[in-house]
Amino acid sequence: MRKVAIIGAGNSKFGNRSDVNIMELAFEAVKPALEDAEATAKDVEFMALGSTGAGAWYAELLPAIVTAEHCGLTGAGLVRCEAACASGSAAFFTAYSAIATGQADIAMALGVEKMREIDTPTTMEWIGRAGSYLWEFHNFGLTFPAYYALYATAHMARFGTTEEDLALVAVKNHKYGSMNPLAHLQNRITVEDVLSSMVIAYPLKLFDCCPITDGAAALVLASEEKVKELKVDTPVWVAGIGYASGTANLSRRQHYVGLEASVLASKRAFKSSKIKPDDVDVAEVHDCFTIAEIMAYEDVGFCKKGEGAKLIREGQTEIGGKIPINLDGGLKAKGHPIGATGCSMIYELTKQLREEVERNRQAPMKNYVALAHNVGGTGHYCYVTVLKR
Amino acid sequence: MRKVAIIGAGNSKFGNRSDVNIMELAFEAVKPALEDAEATAKDVEFMALGSTGAGAWYAELLPAIVTAEHCGLTGAGLVRCEAACASGSAAFFTAYSAIATGQADIAMALGVEKMREIDTPTTMEWIGRAGSYLWEFHNFGLTFPAYYALYATAHMARFGTTEEDLALVAVKNHKYGSMNPLAHLQNRITVEDVLSSMVIAYPLKLFDCCPITDGAAALVLASEEKVKELKVDTPVWVAGIGYASGTANLSRRQHYVGLEASVLASKRAFKSSKIKPDDVDVAEVHDCFTIAEIMAYEDVGFCKKGEGAKLIREGQTEIGGKIPINLDGGLKAKGHPIGATGCSMIYELTKQLREEVERNRQAPMKNYVALAHNVGGTGHYCYVTVLKR
Repeated sequence: MRKVAIIGAGNSKFGNRSDVNIMELAFEAVKPALEDAEATAKDVEFMALGSTGAGAWYAELLPAIVTAEHCGLTGAGLVRCEAACASGSAAFFTAYSAIATGQADIAMALGVEKMREIDTPTTMEWIGRAGSYLWEFHNFGLTFPAYYALYATAHMARFGTTEEDLALVAVKNHKYGSMNPLAHLQNRITVEDVLSSMVIAYPLKLFDCCPITDGAAALVLASEEKVKELKVDTPVWVAGIGYASGTANLSRRQHYVGLEASVLASKRAFKSSKIKPDDVDVAEVHDCFTIAEIMAYEDVGFCKKGEGAKLIREGQTEIGGKIPINLDGGLKAKGHPIGATGCSMIYELTKQLREEVERNRQAPMKNYVALAHNVGGTGHYCYVTVLKR
Repeated sequence: MRKVAIIGAGNSKFGNRSDVNIMELAFEAVKPALEDAEATAKDVEFMALGSTGAGAWYAELLPAIVTAEHCGLTGAGLVRCEAACASGSAAFFTAYSAIATGQADIAMALGVEKMREIDTPTTMEWIGRAGSYLWEFHNFGLTFPAYYALYATAHMARFGTTEEDLALVAVKNHKYGSMNPLAHLQNRITVEDVLSSMVIAYPLKLFDCCPITDGAAALVLASEEKVKELKVDTPVWVAGIGYASGTANLSRRQHYVGLEASVLASKRAFKSSKIKPDDVDVAEVHDCFTIAEIMAYEDVGFCKKGEGAKLIREGQTEIGGKIPINLDGGLKAKGHPIGATGCSMIYELTKQLREEVERNRQAPMKNYVALAHNVGGTGHYCYVTVLKR
């Protein structure tokens, strides 16, 4: 298996992007990624696109094709990867594999999603299908926040996690979002703001939920030979990727205090990269809801099960703490354009490892190791990617 | 890069499968594939699903998740691959790569599509989006058959290909479809039947078009080490895979007598497998419309550009001819459940290489080499897979 490095990274402005169509949005990530890599579109032999909403929240049914044409990538091998909210990481895995097998020397992982073209209730209905549509959604009417609310109440009952603990996650992520010019939400908030916001699905309130966001992110990947040939200054190596899945029906889960797929994917990622949780300098974890970030601390292995709330309470996941997490604002404040999120996490970590982010949100580097944890649905999919400079 | 073999293959009955849901349909392919491989669902570490119509012509938005749960694959890494009508081949490529890189020892490629849950006009609208929706479809109202009709008239004008030549493709594929118990259409037809059938988009008539079909196909893939460990009798090796893409807008194509993506993907597949067109004993090519099969003869390299019609006229693509093609009935008669087709082509070729198909439609084997050519959209995507026993 050949070594693979990230040699270019680009990320569009996240937010309400009604000013652009899906191709133009993708271009805002592809262009800087190629420039960063000092490569051209014609160098890209394979492109994997992460996107979920084709034909649902946006109209183009073949987004890989139309974005490739718009960005000059036509001719390259193409595939669209869907792993719900982990689609971007699945695309990254696919592009990585195309190089690792020797089938391509330069490949691109692109994530793009336009979620705000249709009305919010319809978007919510679509997102609610992320599970077992014909059984749990259709028969019981559970929406997506309601799924995570089940986990939140279980975690509170079992470990004493409080609504204030959940709010602290939102406060932290808004703080870092306010420092990130690409973030959708750049306002700082307080615990009181979160607690007094509208209840969506108890105990989750409006500010416990990530926004509905448009956005794109792109990574250019290259083989070790190509990295040498191109004399890349600061290649960021893919140390390992872990993947796993969970049951479609939540009623078949063993418990509701963590996501089994996260545990399994993290173990596989650490095993394949020969890296331990303690080695990680900075991480991105999947905080679609505040409870998701707390569970991720535990499931990835940054703390023991049940101690996630302690980590946020102590400030251990801020800069200066044990393991700084979601320094770009996370899904919570940067926003969560479903298919783009995985690539955007890896974009952020690439910049962190290269020490190129805004100074006030740069994590201190010891081992130059970073980890992205990306969940699809309610632990239906999980991809964990370990990077090393 | 590790060698990868197909060690198990399964294919559901194709047709109007309103008797099953998407998970049950998938199971009809997964079960025989696992039995054929003498493996269990728990042995599968990674599964790539080819499917396009999630949320369009069937309701489940995460088909990989629900089919995995139904088939006992939960826990494995999962991704859904979309490459329009080449989704099955894209899934095969992804599962292949997961093993070739060493990230998995046993993986599955599964293709499944339920296209008949909704009314035909709506299905046709969805399929018509396979291109540039916002421009060519939305502004000019071109349907999918109309795209291929443009190619048919260009081919006729340039090379003298006739409506009778197109009809011969349908006659051949219905003949083999009548021998394949899994095929959707098992009736034999005559040239006269084709010529007198309803015009869909001139010169394409009803019998020039593939039907709208439900179906599933699955392949179990394994590393060389695993093949030895399991003492697999007749592994079918993946000799090489080529991929390419074409412009989203047909108005940007250089010509209309062939598909550039087919030419490029075929060249890449032959190069990586070190196999020549003349070495191929049996092939599956993408005959969504009769003109597509004739163009594929030329684009893959079984004959020179412009000589495709001669090949069908002379019977060179039947058993006994130079290169027998679509001996399972092809998309035209076996049917074309979009996401399943690529896997079903590879299922058929695996059986052909193992000399396990019905005797009257078994290709004679010389080099034990087979080729699957799978197009997405109107040459938007193309994957070419070369197999060798």
